[in-house]
Amino acid sequence: MNILEIIEKKKNKISLTESEINFVINNFVNDLIPEYQMSAFLMCILLNGMNVNETYFLTKAMMNSGKRINVSSRNKFNLIIDKHSSGGVGDKVSLIILPILVALGYDVAKLSGKGLSFTGGTIDKLDSINVKTNLTNYQELIDKYFMFNIMQSKEIVPADKKIYALRDVTGTVNSLPLIASSILSKKFIINSDYVFLDIKVGNGAFCKNIKEGVSLANLILKIAKKMKRKVIIHLTSMQKPLGRCIGNQIEIQEAIAFLKDFKQASTDLKTLIEELIVDILLATKKFKNKLLAKKEYEKVLDNQLAYKCAINYWVGLGADYESLKNNSFWNPKYKLEIKANKSGYINYLSAKEIGLIAVELKAGRKTKNDKLDYAAGIFLNKKTNEYVKFGETIATLYANDLINLSLEQRFLANVAINEEMIKLPKIILKIMK
Amino acid sequence: MNILEIIEKKKNKISLTESEINFVINNFVNDLIPEYQMSAFLMCILLNGMNVNETYFLTKAMMNSGKRINVSSRNKFNLIIDKHSSGGVGDKVSLIILPILVALGYDVAKLSGKGLSFTGGTIDKLDSINVKTNLTNYQELIDKYFMFNIMQSKEIVPADKKIYALRDVTGTVNSLPLIASSILSKKFIINSDYVFLDIKVGNGAFCKNIKEGVSLANLILKIAKKMKRKVIIHLTSMQKPLGRCIGNQIEIQEAIAFLKDFKQASTDLKTLIEELIVDILLATKKFKNKLLAKKEYEKVLDNQLAYKCAINYWVGLGADYESLKNNSFWNPKYKLEIKANKSGYINYLSAKEIGLIAVELKAGRKTKNDKLDYAAGIFLNKKTNEYVKFGETIATLYANDLINLSLEQRFLANVAINEEMIKLPKIILKIMK
Repeated sequence: MNILEIIEKKKNKISLTESEINFVINNFVNDLIPEYQMSAFLMCILLNGMNVNETYFLTKAMMNSGKRINVSSRNKFNLIIDKHSSGGVGDKVSLIILPILVALGYDVAKLSGKGLSFTGGTIDKLDSINVKTNLTNYQELIDKYFMFNIMQSKEIVPADKKIYALRDVTGTVNSLPLIASSILSKKFIINSDYVFLDIKVGNGAFCKNIKEGVSLANLILKIAKKMKRKVIIHLTSMQKPLGRCIGNQIEIQEAIAFLKDFKQASTDLKTLIEELIVDILLATKKFKNKLLAKKEYEKVLDNQLAYKCAINYWVGLGADYESLKNNSFWNPKYKLEIKANKSGYINYLSAKEIGLIAVELKAGRKTKNDKLDYAAGIFLNKKTNEYVKFGETIATLYANDLINLSLEQRFLANVAINEEMIKLPKIILKIMK
Repeated sequence: MNILEIIEKKKNKISLTESEINFVINNFVNDLIPEYQMSAFLMCILLNGMNVNETYFLTKAMMNSGKRINVSSRNKFNLIIDKHSSGGVGDKVSLIILPILVALGYDVAKLSGKGLSFTGGTIDKLDSINVKTNLTNYQELIDKYFMFNIMQSKEIVPADKKIYALRDVTGTVNSLPLIASSILSKKFIINSDYVFLDIKVGNGAFCKNIKEGVSLANLILKIAKKMKRKVIIHLTSMQKPLGRCIGNQIEIQEAIAFLKDFKQASTDLKTLIEELIVDILLATKKFKNKLLAKKEYEKVLDNQLAYKCAINYWVGLGADYESLKNNSFWNPKYKLEIKANKSGYINYLSAKEIGLIAVELKAGRKTKNDKLDYAAGIFLNKKTNEYVKFGETIATLYANDLINLSLEQRFLANVAINEEMIKLPKIILKIMK
């Protein structure tokens, strides 16, 4: 068996066997297949595809490249939940939903990633308030906080780490089998009872439309079935930025505000979190109907239990309690207010473009080694379909460095101010299981 | 402009511009694009193709990566001819045809390559009798010998050298635009008046069937037209080994025998050389009809002029005159005779398999750095459609190392002995210009 014969098969659209896929993954991880051969192979997969079986074998091979994470829940009745979002602009759902799940009696086991390009990463947001994210004491964290939300370590799916780095620089990211195996290998090495996947769909996500999202979800569900794992997928809209804040510390602030008083939160974020939580409560059979589920969800927010779970975890792992409590951790040096040049209803034309402006402010990375400005970010004073008067502030850009004034024009080019509201897509587009 | 955007375009089957193709070639040659990105790009070309314009731009970019070869013919009436074969098993046509062309009054300017896998290379054959092949004094050679047949130097199309090495190890060899640009860039950097290409077709060549051969020829002719260069293509059969000898010194021996007395040569080789030469004489308008052309061809063989041209060049550049004259340069230590296990008409089932057996004998290379045994090779005592009696020798394997006896079975597995002759394809399948 050699890599050239395997490339030849994939070139000719012949399905690969499990041992061929194992051969490639094992040898690549052990540096026995050079990057130039692997990238040719990955491009072959991107263009010629992989069937469900091949993607299943690939996912297994990647899982087997490193250690497994086996944790026990706080008691035998508690379910271990993994909750993952494919990432978008202003997507702080993980920050908010994890402590709510803990408050609702679940144990949460979750690995997260750093942000790249226009989508943010949960790990960066936690790093921005000094929460430790490079731990490996999974059971200890579950025992103490009923949750962990940490970075993938070197021992966890090293094949994915190495392959992803190569995909990123060879134009081989947007392949469904490669995306599915990358996501699932990092989910299935944890012995969770349920995996909830939030696949973002729209110009601010890697799935640009519902058709792509459904294809990915279908592939993921087929592999989950072969693995005998429970996976529930929400396809959710990422046409507009989610919530009002984009950035790292600024999103932490929005998350805290949500947990303290969810009723003041922006509608899109509020709707999404509520619907996700209610679905989780029903899918895991904690409640029999939506009304009871919703009531319990509101209870753990109203009684501040979810907020306490968040503070407990964040402060326990390094964040400063006082500055979180006083909301004093976020202190950008500069701001630039974007003013409306006429009156009307706001419409942000592209979540991606807003994300890219945040990257210019150094809230996100252009390349992997870029250093972030944690204070940098964007506050949307007005959301899509909110009314703005001429001269009023639409949004505010923040950073510790002087803000390039050209960003004002760039921002305004992405905002339409109309006489009427637009029709927004539903926030949850489809649930698949 | 960056390589990822260019890969993205090719992934989406969008035609690349000349400046994009120049960007890739220049930056790859100057080590500014790493191999892992280039191999992903090459796989993209292999799977998504390139149109005629893109292939034309690619050919030009590769030509511009190095020096040109501008030579003057011995006098202003003489044409400079480049004659190239895409390579096959037992293909010693270049060795024979070049001195014949010189004898017929052409000047010949030709770069050749080393052999890899089952096809032999002219440079190895010349090396096997100590003819210098690493020269760059093109004009001096033309002035002295009216020809040169040397190896591509580092300054000649360095892009092709670097790209070919990568294609060879990434499964990206069999792409028509990559093959066409690789061949033509090395032809068009020489200011020849005519380029004659012999594209081998069959299991012993890289074009497996006439359809592939015609596609390649069409692409080459379209690019030649854009370059305003005269190219004439012969598609010739490579289903059976050509002539009786496969190897290095052994093919030199067969070439000398041909030049001394072509009438004794095997029919396939005799027919091919004669038809090629007659076509060249007609295409270059030296003669008006086949009969006169054939007469002139036979004359320069009968009067030993072609033979003398060969000896003059080979000895002039380092070969030993006495050993060529006495036929004493080839002295393999071991031989293994393959005997017929029944009587009947011979049919070699695969030229490729015979070529691979020659590689086992070290007449060819498995990988680029393998050292050859110049004495190794195969003599076909019987050719396809010749009659063999039970126990008679079908073929003889030669080498300086002990010959693995298992090769006998491997050889016999590739020979059918039938009660009747088979129908052989014509040697010249198609002429395209």
